[in-house]
This record gives sequence, structure tokens and C-alpha cells, in this order.
Amino acid sequence: MSEYIEHDQAGISVGLVEKEFFTFAAPPNEMSLESGATLGPITLAYETCGKLDENKDNVVLILHALSGDSHVAGYYSEKDPSPGWWDNMVGPGKGVDTDKYFVICSNIVGSCKGSTGPCSIKPNTQKPYALDFPVVTIGDIVKAQKALLDYLGVKKILSVVGGSIGGMQVVEWCVRYPEMVASAIPLATTTKHSALAIAFNEVARQAIMRDPNWNNGDYYGGPKPDQGLAVARMIGHITYLSDQSMRRKFGRRLQDKGDVSFNFDVDFQVESYLRHQGQKFVYRFDANSFLYITKASDYFNLENQHGNGSIVEAFSKTKAKFLVVSFTSDWLYPTYQSKAMVQAMKKNGLDVSFCEIEADWGHDAFLLADEQLTKLVTGFLGRVYGEL
Amino acid sequence: MSEYIEHDQAGISVGLVEKEFFTFAAPPNEMSLESGATLGPITLAYETCGKLDENKDNVVLILHALSGDSHVAGYYSEKDPSPGWWDNMVGPGKGVDTDKYFVICSNIVGSCKGSTGPCSIKPNTQKPYALDFPVVTIGDIVKAQKALLDYLGVKKILSVVGGSIGGMQVVEWCVRYPEMVASAIPLATTTKHSALAIAFNEVARQAIMRDPNWNNGDYYGGPKPDQGLAVARMIGHITYLSDQSMRRKFGRRLQDKGDVSFNFDVDFQVESYLRHQGQKFVYRFDANSFLYITKASDYFNLENQHGNGSIVEAFSKTKAKFLVVSFTSDWLYPTYQSKAMVQAMKKNGLDVSFCEIEADWGHDAFLLADEQLTKLVTGFLGRVYGEL
Repeated sequence: MSEYIEHDQAGISVGLVEKEFFTFAAPPNEMSLESGATLGPITLAYETCGKLDENKDNVVLILHALSGDSHVAGYYSEKDPSPGWWDNMVGPGKGVDTDKYFVICSNIVGSCKGSTGPCSIKPNTQKPYALDFPVVTIGDIVKAQKALLDYLGVKKILSVVGGSIGGMQVVEWCVRYPEMVASAIPLATTTKHSALAIAFNEVARQAIMRDPNWNNGDYYGGPKPDQGLAVARMIGHITYLSDQSMRRKFGRRLQDKGDVSFNFDVDFQVESYLRHQGQKFVYRFDANSFLYITKASDYFNLENQHGNGSIVEAFSKTKAKFLVVSFTSDWLYPTYQSKAMVQAMKKNGLDVSFCEIEADWGHDAFLLADEQLTKLVTGFLGRVYGEL
Repeated sequence: MSEYIEHDQAGISVGLVEKEFFTFAAPPNEMSLESGATLGPITLAYETCGKLDENKDNVVLILHALSGDSHVAGYYSEKDPSPGWWDNMVGPGKGVDTDKYFVICSNIVGSCKGSTGPCSIKPNTQKPYALDFPVVTIGDIVKAQKALLDYLGVKKILSVVGGSIGGMQVVEWCVRYPEMVASAIPLATTTKHSALAIAFNEVARQAIMRDPNWNNGDYYGGPKPDQGLAVARMIGHITYLSDQSMRRKFGRRLQDKGDVSFNFDVDFQVESYLRHQGQKFVYRFDANSFLYITKASDYFNLENQHGNGSIVEAFSKTKAKFLVVSFTSDWLYPTYQSKAMVQAMKKNGLDVSFCEIEADWGHDAFLLADEQLTKLVTGFLGRVYGEL
């Protein structure tokens, strides 16, 4: 282990991991999508950690959010300065204990982190799909993950776990493939976007689509819509925090100056933070992927897609045990939305634990190291594993 | 009166009004600004309605918010299809009763609705100021209004009234010119922006400044940064509403279609609303004015500017009677910010009435016809007028 890995904040890491790839649905066997379109071949980037039991009954499938990827935990090399996006939760002795469970995490279809998406080369052309990429849904994303699990020989999943858009995939998995899912942990999520959540996504999309470099999605090889994407990311970052957390993190503190500048440079720390987050994002994310994934999340409507408009009917299609967690200061997916989910699960007589965690950090709270969340996940996974 | 005026929603209108102009601070007597810069000449567009009493003791000064103007009530012509921005509150027999009070409303410095701002011609050039316009503060805006009131011969104001950024001007008036202000009604406002409010303003500014047509502010006569300004306005509109009001107003209803489109056109009504609001705004507002006015609101910090960091000390500088009103679903200037203000007023032994109105409409609530708000304003103004 390198000095970087030894100094990992969380103490112990899963160590070195590798990004792998699985390709399927090659023509003429393209995957059919909810829109009626088809897509193929499809490549999924994925990573695993821990060890699959002989019985293959210790699989935890982790599903990532908007800008996430397959790199859920560990390091790519001994010099890698930072671990995967959920290293505080996934690793030896952690909430999702890789000494006990076999973790699988795949990058979603439509993303730009190794899986097929709008920046991938379109078959029989030498060019990226751009807007020729079909609009995919949370259902399509989950259907592709199912193909990966089939390929890996996994027939039963101990638990599907994810927050935000990852949480949407969690509940979709439960009702779409009920025979496979023993338990599920949807975190900070919803079964359908509110008008407020759609509004934020739409304004972010408009920021991208009104950037002249976006060029109707056809910007690969030319100047990219970096300005629009940066603004989109800044909008997102506001919704991931909360009034309280921003007050604590930034307040009205100035950035490296004693007084305001009386111009339009950075004055306040919160301005510097947002500009920095926007700038960083354009180096690691594709603007079209941002459009496709936000659209998938806006379209998601579990009750319409699986319950004829009834959330109770939708959850009648699963037998999974649930741990549902919301966070007090999450105003993107407020607790009332988790409670609606929990109520519908209970009406179906499902085994449901629900916890609203007192947290100031807003929607982002599900990603941050939190002792209570770790204990809940540890306890829940231990119980459902014992009850198999 | 035309059919338009007769069909005015509020029933009775103040009738025809006229935009007037007052110019002062001509060189070499420029007005000095808080930044240390100077500005002059300064023109203020203003409107009045009602009649000034012989004693000149019935003046109500109304102060507008970000995108407002001097046109607070009434119509410009008999064919004018819509009245001023607060016609539901200002008029004969209304909350601010123009049968009793003489209403003055002026467009703020830095705006683009008749007062001097970045789109005005810079003296001794043939060109608009653009970014040569100095950054103005809420204090500067109020100082210019004071010059207008001096010109109009007003020595005493019965009440200063305004919401949002208008409310900031209200409290600034009270501590800056305490001898002039008998009472004040700050609505849905704050004595200093939270990090969250700064964050939304900054992202909106970034949307404008990253539009290539913005051209460092120098776009007059060329293509305008309409795309950036539209996105900025959309961001604003989200913050003016609330989760509840958006759920009620839009929910997940689709715009003129039976199913989602599986592309990036408008699917949901809330998307159509936001795009429409963005588009409308670029015809009536100047992008640079948006930058200047949001910056003035971010800089506003009553306690620092008037109380050595103490809000109690700041309010020790006024003797005004206050009616402070907040709205339950206003998450831009939440009630706790009004309460902090009220507490500081009370510690100074001031005559303060405070009401948090139960309203779903978010920050916008202060502008909408609301019986409770109208009654509060009517009652408060009647009382303070009687107590003169």
C-alpha cells in the first residue's frame, strides 16, 4: 500500500480495484428501450470488491447518482490520491463490509465514465452518438444492469443500495426483478420528481443547451459547452446543500479579502466554491450525459410505470425488505417523499425500516461519512444476510 | 376609462398615471457612493398617485424589488392591458389607500426602467456605461431616493414599504434617515443575504457572464446575452416559488401532450413555464442591470454597515414603527431572518408588529393579492397615520 492509501481518511480501504467492462446487446440483438427505440452494443464499466461466496448469496449491488461512476471504493493505483466516491461506506469493516459482502457497482447507461452514452461512438459511423443517442429511462438503466448481473452469474442480490438517482434505480430493481432482490436501501430519494426537482434539472439543461458551443449536442471534436455545463453544475451544487449547511460552511465570509471588491469578481467564499465546482466538473463530465441522466430522473415515475398510477400497487410487485433513509435538511427529496414510499410498502405488508436522519448537510448528506447511517446500513445488511 | 381598466382584477384602479423623471447630481456635484466612486448626473424615473396633503404628512414611499420599476399601480393609457406591479395593494380603498395617502415609487439607480444604470449613456461619451457603471449599494440607492424626496419637498414619510430587495431599502431608509421615517413595512426580506441567497444570485450572474454575447458587459448595439439572462431569470423564478406552490401549480402535468417526448423538448408544464418566463424577461430587462442589482443585494448587510456588526445597534438608529411580515413558504428569506430583525427592534424598545403569513406561494407571496396582508397593511397605516 502506498502512503496515500495508508492515510485514507476512513482508516481502512478495500485497496486496489480495477475498472472492468462488459459488452452485450450487439446487433442484431440490441436492447429494447422504454421509448420503443433500441440500443446496442452496450458496454457497462463496472467494478467489484470483496469476494463472492460459494453460494453467491452475498452480493450487494451499489447504484450511483447523477455524476457518479463504477468507482465506488478503493484506489486505482498506489499513487491514486483519492479513493472511490463512497469509500467511507464501502470497505473492510465499514457499513457495506467488503470482508462479508461482494460489492458490484456499474456505471449507468447514458453516462460518460466507461459505459455507453452519448459520447460513445455510434456503430457504423466514426462519430459519437451525440443526440442520436436514445433517451434512456431508469428502467432501461436497470435492465442493462440486469444483463451485467446475468453475465456475472448472479441470480440473487442480497441488497441493492443507492441514494438520489441511485435510489430510484434501487426501487426500480425491486419491482422490476422482484425474484432477484432480497433487500434494498433507498437513500435520500423519491419515486417521482416533484415539480421543483424537474425545475432545477430543466434550468440546468437550459444552461447547457443555450451555450452556443453545445451546437445541438454535436460538439465532440470542437469547443465544448463548458460554460453552460459549469452553470448547470453550480445549480446542482446549491440543491445538494442546505440553508443551514451553507451558513455553516460559508456564511458571508469573504474569499481572501478584507472587504468586498465593488466589481463582479469573487467576493464571497460561497461564490468561489461554486465557480470552482463548476470548473472542476467540465473536466470530468460530458454535457450531453448530464442532459440524458437528468431527463431519465425527471421521467422516473414508479407508480405510473409499475402501478397504474398507484404507488401501493407498484410496491405490491416486490417482496424485498427495505431500509429507507431520508435526511432532515434534504429539500430536493424531502422526507415526505420517503414517507409516501414507506407508507406504500407498509400497506403491502413489507418488512420496512425507516429513519429520518437529523443532518444539516442537505441532499449531500447521504454521501458523507455519518456514524448513524453507517450503523443503520451495517445492522440492516447483517440482519437480512442472517435471515436468508 | 377603457374596458381594460374597468376589467381590472382588483376592481378599482388608481387610473391613469405618468412616469416622471428627476435628474440631479450633475457634475461637478456628483453623488458619492459607498464604494468611494461618484456618479452623476443621476436620473430617477418615478411615479406618484393619490394626493399630497397640505401638511405633507401622508407620504407612503414604495420601494421595488429586483425587476420592478416605478410603475407600482394604475395604467399608462386607456388601452394599457395591465396595471402596475402592485395594483392589488395600491389604489382607492386598497391596502395602501390612494384616497388617503400620497404614494411615491421610483425606479432604483442601477436599473433599466428609466433611472440611470449601466445601459444609460455615460457623460462625455456616446456610449452606455456598461461595466464602467460603478457598483452601487442599497445605501446608494436609498441616498438617491432621498434626493428625489428633497426635490418633491417631502420632509416626513408616513411609511416606507417594500418587499424583498425593496424591503432591504425599507430598513436602510429607517436607519439612514431616521428623522424622516415615521413607520416602515419590510415584507419578505432580510437585513443580510444568507449564503444560499448569495449562491443563487451568483449562479444567475455566472449564467449571464458566461454567455459569449455578454462580452464583458459591452454588448449594447450588438447581440445581447439573452440566453444567459433567460437562464438567470429561470433560476430566480424557482426561488420565488416553493415546493408546495409548484406542486399545486404544475405537479408533473405534461404540456399539451399525452406522454413524454423522449427528447429534450418541453415535456412538463413547469419546463414550459420556466422557458416562457426566461424568454419574456429578456425583452424587458437589461442583463447588466441584473448583475448590478443582485450584487447590491448580496452586499447589503445592515448590521455591518450601520451597527458595527450588531443588528441591535443598527436598529438603535431609528424610531420608526414597524410592521414586519414574512411568509411560511418563503425559503429565500425564511421567517427566521425576519424574526432576527424583529428581535433587534424589540431590544431597542421599538413599536413592532410582526406577522408570519401562512402562504404556499413562496417568496412571491408578498406580491400576490392576499386578504390578510391587505388587512395588516390597511390597519397598520391607519394606526400610524392616526398617531402622527
